[in-house]
Amino acid sequence: MTERNDFLRAYWAAVAAQDAAALRSFFAPDAVIRWHNTNERFTLEEFIRVNCEYPGNWCGRVERIEQAGALSITATHVWAADGEASFHAVSFFAFAGEAITTLDEYWGDDAPAPQWRQELAIGTELGG
Amino acid sequence: MTERNDFLRAYWAAVAAQDAAALRSFFAPDAVIRWHNTNERFTLEEFIRVNCEYPGNWCGRVERIEQAGALSITATHVWAADGEASFHAVSFFAFAGEAITTLDEYWGDDAPAPQWRQELAIGTELGG
Repeated sequence: MTERNDFLRAYWAAVAAQDAAALRSFFAPDAVIRWHNTNERFTLEEFIRVNCEYPGNWCGRVERIEQAGALSITATHVWAADGEASFHAVSFFAFAGEAITTLDEYWGDDAPAPQWRQELAIGTELGG
Repeated sequence: MTERNDFLRAYWAAVAAQDAAALRSFFAPDAVIRWHNTNERFTLEEFIRVNCEYPGNWCGRVERIEQAGALSITATHVWAADGEASFHAVSFFAFAGEAITTLDEYWGDDAPAPQWRQELAIGTELGG
């Protein structure tokens, strides 16, 4: 699946670069994109607008790619170039041919473990 | 994969119930569990402690199950019984036989879309 992996890495590069024309090239025109944590559902043009108007300058690194039949799944670390924000996104991509038709994403903030878990003094055995 | 799906739904029921003995039965003794958003890594006993000491009473609903070869992937909605918190978790389960050996989880808060996205008046075409 090297070709699919290349596609997914190029897709995430376009997301981080907030490059509308590049982003559009990965999708079917009638694609549907869902952000489940905020219960948002976008057409392709809405998604491109949201992605490209998202405040800040962004970096991304795809940390994991899995194939579940025709579906691709990525886990990606996305962080602000100014260091002010950091996220992980898990994305489920469905395709028609080489075009994304549906994209279901789960976004979560990165943050230190809360105080009550730090006080458990866990993670020492495995080195954190 | 009905048997695997049943396993995964039973696993998530044990997570929500914070049932230590039930939780332990799903894992290999030397399992490793990682929470990537908080950069935490747990042994099985640490994970059971963290899961079962997590404040509050919880409900869970598995919204999606995918199989990527021997790997299982779930997307689960987890919310506090008092309505004070809501999350989505995406989990990557690796197995030896019928026991979980590694579990990689991505947790994100649920929340309304931020003001700047609400002001774009997006989502109307698809009905939100």
